[in-house]
Amino acid sequence: MALTPKFDADGLVTCVVTDAASGDVLMVAHMNAEALAKTIAIGEAWYFSRSRRALWKKGETSGHTQRVVEMRIDCDQDAVWIKVEQVSGACHTGRRSCFYRAVPLGQNGGAMTLEFRDARVFDPKAAYPSKKD
Amino acid sequence: MALTPKFDADGLVTCVVTDAASGDVLMVAHMNAEALAKTIAIGEAWYFSRSRRALWKKGETSGHTQRVVEMRIDCDQDAVWIKVEQVSGACHTGRRSCFYRAVPLGQNGGAMTLEFRDARVFDPKAAYPSKKD
Repeated sequence: MALTPKFDADGLVTCVVTDAASGDVLMVAHMNAEALAKTIAIGEAWYFSRSRRALWKKGETSGHTQRVVEMRIDCDQDAVWIKVEQVSGACHTGRRSCFYRAVPLGQNGGAMTLEFRDARVFDPKAAYPSKKD
Repeated sequence: MALTPKFDADGLVTCVVTDAASGDVLMVAHMNAEALAKTIAIGEAWYFSRSRRALWKKGETSGHTQRVVEMRIDCDQDAVWIKVEQVSGACHTGRRSCFYRAVPLGQNGGAMTLEFRDARVFDPKAAYPSKKD
């Protein structure tokens, strides 16, 4: 019953983030030991960016922070699940969730298509002025 | 709007699995191109085991299969989310979800503890006779 996270070769665990109200998966991110410790201590989501090799607090640029309602850890302690109260939207594209597209089932080989499910809830150009997306 | 998964250096994408009824996160696993294609085509969850380096159908040993109700993909196409109808439980320890322990918030440094949240829903020794857990 001790927290003994099994960090991967890059020193990270996977973090699944769900909306505490709707249950929807908002995003998948990664935490190093420092991000995990800060999230537990403070109750707001901190991550480690694999592309920027840097610790970041969710919402530090956009203001779209995540207050953690509950944290769970899985059987082999290499993944955590946090239920959060999400300000505005989690996705840099302006959607509430990064998972705004469905992959229709039954497609069998060849080029496969996606279908939009969720509209934007904020303007990504205003929230992330330095991003080109 | 094309499915163009961004597989990592090991040829995998992360897969978050939630219970279509409760919304709870059941497990986090990985899919290679073949597991992803089979899951989309058949509508039952297939994964790639990083430890065994092998394709596997969820439930092939235990019978605890996952029928996929919906698949979503995230903004950068390196993670998928499937909502499933789970037979019995997803976790090899006998729980419905692998995330059966909470990490209480507010713990600040030092040895941290976990708290059980979910009881077993099946006997893991009967379902997975070759496992020692």
